Amino acid sequence: MQLPVRGAFEDASAVRLRCRDGSLSGPTSGLAPGFVQANLVILPRAVALDFWLFCHRNPQACPVLEVTAAGQAEPRRLAPGADVRCDLPRYHVYRRGVLTETPCEIQPFWRDDLVCFLLGCSFSFENALLRAGLPVRHIEQGCNVPMFRSTRACETAGPFEGPLVVSMRPMPRAQVIRAVEITAGVPHAHGAPVQLGAPEALGIKDLQAPDFGDPVRIEADELPLFWACGVTALEAVRRAAPELAITHAPGHMFVTDMHAGDRLC
Amino acid sequence: MQLPVRGAFEDASAVRLRCRDGSLSGPTSGLAPGFVQANLVILPRAVALDFWLFCHRNPQACPVLEVTAAGQAEPRRLAPGADVRCDLPRYHVYRRGVLTETPCEIQPFWRDDLVCFLLGCSFSFENALLRAGLPVRHIEQGCNVPMFRSTRACETAGPFEGPLVVSMRPMPRAQVIRAVEITAGVPHAHGAPVQLGAPEALGIKDLQAPDFGDPVRIEADELPLFWACGVTALEAVRRAAPELAITHAPGHMFVTDMHAGDRLC
Repeated sequence: MQLPVRGAFEDASAVRLRCRDGSLSGPTSGLAPGFVQANLVILPRAVALDFWLFCHRNPQACPVLEVTAAGQAEPRRLAPGADVRCDLPRYHVYRRGVLTETPCEIQPFWRDDLVCFLLGCSFSFENALLRAGLPVRHIEQGCNVPMFRSTRACETAGPFEGPLVVSMRPMPRAQVIRAVEITAGVPHAHGAPVQLGAPEALGIKDLQAPDFGDPVRIEADELPLFWACGVTALEAVRRAAPELAITHAPGHMFVTDMHAGDRLC
Repeated sequence: MQLPVRGAFEDASAVRLRCRDGSLSGPTSGLAPGFVQANLVILPRAVALDFWLFCHRNPQACPVLEVTAAGQAEPRRLAPGADVRCDLPRYHVYRRGVLTETPCEIQPFWRDDLVCFLLGCSFSFENALLRAGLPVRHIEQGCNVPMFRSTRACETAGPFEGPLVVSMRPMPRAQVIRAVEITAGVPHAHGAPVQLGAPEALGIKDLQAPDFGDPVRIEADELPLFWACGVTALEAVRRAAPELAITHAPGHMFVTDMHAGDRLC
């Protein structure tokens, strides 16, 4: 009897191939460990310059790993030969800010004026935290990371504006410094936390009621650590409400050929 | 009798003020030491996205420090309150790739669709080399750094293409490693050399006949080191020949409020 192949045995291209042939349509968390995963935002060229500016001005939340030329679906730097129109498990299609479709491939929506942005993702640093023996609670609990709209406003750019969205991971007090140190070393995956121990400083009232994702347990000797989150970009795109926007479905990321230790931005 | 004020006593804002009031119209090399200087490229919004892509794909030659929104002349990140239209000593104005004016301020040319790019400059790492006791020959000789069009092609983006332009600084063999080490630490100023010791590998036939700048002496125990150069961007802009392009005049850079050790890209 053959056991099901677990992600730990796959490399990035194998994961992308499973997306392309339709056999993978679920989240990519934990797949192809050690490979950098990325958020995907696809926008018409008419608003792409302003969106790039938004990312440039909010680099902790929106670290730009690669941008493609209008009409190009191959991220030549992150994964030569890949096609962002079919190599992710699932997509969200927005029209004027409203989610209208959640397809597993987006060729039918493709246009020659579409520009693809690949942005850093916290999955990369979570792997680094785990390897260092630090807890990652939502992985332990088998749920999504809790995320909160903070009261901190992003720097705006054209129509793109909105709150800084943060993800929260509790850490034992004795391991907080190590968690800061490790994540500071991966600026392409949001870098160091933006806040620790004081949710009220970010306008967060109830840690058990996240705006996105799932609540997680916080032990008595633990502090909540808050990192800038890629959902910041998705919120800004939703609020800007361009005529068309396509993103990855939350948690269904683009798995790149880059390794976590590579210099990416 | 009052002695002329030398740059060593000025900070960045004082240099910019002298540009603005018209009392400085010469090169900025050696002024406001320790402050990061930047290349300036101003382009119409219609070609700005492709130019940003060109920089993104050729980051060693064109490290992006800041981009302004269309019509905005204040680089809020690098120098809040500054105005790139009058805070540089001299500009080059190109129409369809042809240099037509070399003014000391560009308000008369300003339009609401112009986007400003500020790119890293080797003046920052030269200061670091000098402080480490390494020779910088063109500074010793009081001339401009020698620059060469290499046979290495840049990655293209839309209409922007051209050769990688490199600057050359000879280093004593015993100090080559230190020179690599120091400049590797300043990615916002072109980073480590792209080549050392083999000009022919870059298609350079005669080190005494640079394409830009001045030739410098190379001693018997020295190797030529080649760094990616910001002139790469200026060449790509000239060749793309947009209807309007404004740049700094060579050597007449924008002096930012950032310090050489700051994390900039």
